[in-house]
Amino acid sequence: MTDPSEASEGVSRRGLLGLALGAGAAGIALGAGAGAAAGVAVGRSREREGAASAYAFFGEHQAGITTPVQQHLHFASFDMMARTDRDDLISLLQDWSYAASRMTQGLEVSATGAVLGSPQAPPDDTGEALGLPAAGLTITIGFGPTLFELDGTDRYGIAAQRPDGLRKLPAFLGDDLDPGASNGDLCIQACADDPQVAVHAIRNLSRIAFGRATIRWSQLGFGRTSKTTAAQATPRNLFGFKDGTANILSDDAAALDEYVWAAASDSPAWLAGGSYLVARKIGMIIESWDRVRLAEQDAIIGRDKGEGAPLSGGDEFTEPDFARTDAAGTPLISATSHVRLAHPEFNGGIRILRRGYNFVDGNTDLGRLDAGLFFLSYQRSPEQFVTLQRALSTDTMNEYIRHIGSGIWAIPPGAIAGSFVGAGLFA
Amino acid sequence: MTDPSEASEGVSRRGLLGLALGAGAAGIALGAGAGAAAGVAVGRSREREGAASAYAFFGEHQAGITTPVQQHLHFASFDMMARTDRDDLISLLQDWSYAASRMTQGLEVSATGAVLGSPQAPPDDTGEALGLPAAGLTITIGFGPTLFELDGTDRYGIAAQRPDGLRKLPAFLGDDLDPGASNGDLCIQACADDPQVAVHAIRNLSRIAFGRATIRWSQLGFGRTSKTTAAQATPRNLFGFKDGTANILSDDAAALDEYVWAAASDSPAWLAGGSYLVARKIGMIIESWDRVRLAEQDAIIGRDKGEGAPLSGGDEFTEPDFARTDAAGTPLISATSHVRLAHPEFNGGIRILRRGYNFVDGNTDLGRLDAGLFFLSYQRSPEQFVTLQRALSTDTMNEYIRHIGSGIWAIPPGAIAGSFVGAGLFA
Repeated sequence: MTDPSEASEGVSRRGLLGLALGAGAAGIALGAGAGAAAGVAVGRSREREGAASAYAFFGEHQAGITTPVQQHLHFASFDMMARTDRDDLISLLQDWSYAASRMTQGLEVSATGAVLGSPQAPPDDTGEALGLPAAGLTITIGFGPTLFELDGTDRYGIAAQRPDGLRKLPAFLGDDLDPGASNGDLCIQACADDPQVAVHAIRNLSRIAFGRATIRWSQLGFGRTSKTTAAQATPRNLFGFKDGTANILSDDAAALDEYVWAAASDSPAWLAGGSYLVARKIGMIIESWDRVRLAEQDAIIGRDKGEGAPLSGGDEFTEPDFARTDAAGTPLISATSHVRLAHPEFNGGIRILRRGYNFVDGNTDLGRLDAGLFFLSYQRSPEQFVTLQRALSTDTMNEYIRHIGSGIWAIPPGAIAGSFVGAGLFA
Repeated sequence: MTDPSEASEGVSRRGLLGLALGAGAAGIALGAGAGAAAGVAVGRSREREGAASAYAFFGEHQAGITTPVQQHLHFASFDMMARTDRDDLISLLQDWSYAASRMTQGLEVSATGAVLGSPQAPPDDTGEALGLPAAGLTITIGFGPTLFELDGTDRYGIAAQRPDGLRKLPAFLGDDLDPGASNGDLCIQACADDPQVAVHAIRNLSRIAFGRATIRWSQLGFGRTSKTTAAQATPRNLFGFKDGTANILSDDAAALDEYVWAAASDSPAWLAGGSYLVARKIGMIIESWDRVRLAEQDAIIGRDKGEGAPLSGGDEFTEPDFARTDAAGTPLISATSHVRLAHPEFNGGIRILRRGYNFVDGNTDLGRLDAGLFFLSYQRSPEQFVTLQRALSTDTMNEYIRHIGSGIWAIPPGAIAGSFVGAGLFA
């Protein structure tokens, strides 16, 4: 089982998806995707709490970036297994795309799924999402720097196509990174309004990867800490503050083009219409934060806790006035407040699209909650995140957080129906 | 901070809940609970996905037992701190009851909450649930064996009132228990239809316990694996099978009296109307399970994966016919199947009320999901669980699970308005 060649044989023996792994066969199956729904006897149709929306998997951009942020996240980073080759990587991306195109529509990973295959074979689908709707599931796939080149080796013949900017993030002040929560050859972001649907997606995609890639680390999240449409209320992070007030919204095409979508003018052709995803697992020292007096909490953030209005006045959506002072001439918004340091006026004109989640991973031995923010941001260039993170080096909030995980991935554009995510990289 | 006397002073200095800790004061505040809602300027009123139900905290029984099972769980086990005394325990239960009576109604932990107190003091409420509805939150409090007597010491003057049956569970075949996920002086089960609301509850109750009790271990769960009303669809566990088909339902008063509620006839007076809670963290070796052929999975469970019907025929709710055989005389439901071993016909007539959740705690170093079932059951006597668990010793499912956490707590009856959970123990 630890011998990859043996494992690889296992996959083909089992015929996991009941289809040939070549692009042609996958193409046929994908084309039939929508119609296949009706043929599935045990559908995922019953009602459950939460949205029953289904988002298209195929399209100009991958779903899960500007899609209205769902309530739950299961994120997984994968490493390719030793002795895998270019065909393994291509077949993996094809199989992932095929299964993702089905699961995002509320279907099982294959036509026979959990219960319609041979009773004498393991089922294709693990079954825990049977009866559940699509629940707004999106599956977003990314390529890490090490996929292109690992220790100087071009394992998959794609080293020459690595975007210049796609490299391990530099060290930042205060980093305390756990290799077990950082980096990875590939990533999958699964978001849904039902955690069982998101978990089912990662579990089955991991199973499909058997013999080719294995989970390096993973993270569950809840309570989206951003919004991508004006209709979504601004949620709160575990510091109790509204988060993502100034996020880029999905209907702001100009901002998306300027700050989020990679363009042919400054990235490889295969990545045009894609983006770069940065993940940062940020532990919050919430017990210390909870002992900070309210006025100081407000000052650190630069907004008031109740409404999220800038301390210069107005309501949540009033633009901060950094010049405004009190009678003594002291700025109402401190120079080291989070909102000021992160504001385009002071960070070099940078914006990013945030898509993070709260997390609680149990508790520490001292009885403190192991909690924080799983930060996810999409940007046209990794430089945007680097510049922004450096601008936060004097943030007074840093006393209450530590960055414990980090990763960066290039996010290919969406696949056209009949193809697969990343196809342009292998053209 | 590690000196409990100092910590205890910290609590009273800060005036955490803005009320005296005596029963009288708590009583007044509790009585005003419902009316206080209107006075909270920053209410938790905005809409969010998920149910907006609010369940009464006070009543004959604690909520969270027969309450329709919510979608999310945050469970925490607490140990009392060294050098705490009976008054500390009583005041903790009063403070917990007060805060729970408010949070379950969608209110903050106190009238000033996150933002209405002095700006020069830390807020009473941590704030991340501001704007969220009650989301069906229930908070259920329990007392472990060690609360009554620890290493022969009667710390709180209650050793004589320990129910005979309330003792550490015996070792079972296949136990692989982690002390860091087992036992505890006290427990709190917080269930809600929004994980942020459940997490907020445990976080704030933990904070209120500062200087008196500290979290020993905790667990998040999702995708309820049982139901307590006929209207709830039977959910699926991470083996992909429907779970809890034969659970005791909330409208079955006779079964609740016989199997769930402790009665004065066989338990101390203070526990009458209460119950016993058993928690078992059951790791599932899902990658191995997923390689089992469908017919074998069905045989192990004794039901079919698609509909959950017993292998003897019918639909999900057909009573299993254990005598029925195939043409060759082989029972259709195997003698070592889970459904047969767990059935009252073969387990000695036992029933329990199940309330478990699925969990995924990230992944192992081998890239496998660290996942399983967080089993919670309520029963009139711990002996019910012990008998049932022993009956499962030959369960063929045991090959795919391991019990990694365990705990038992006496669950006092509900508190009457103006009093607190467990008051009868100190009368």
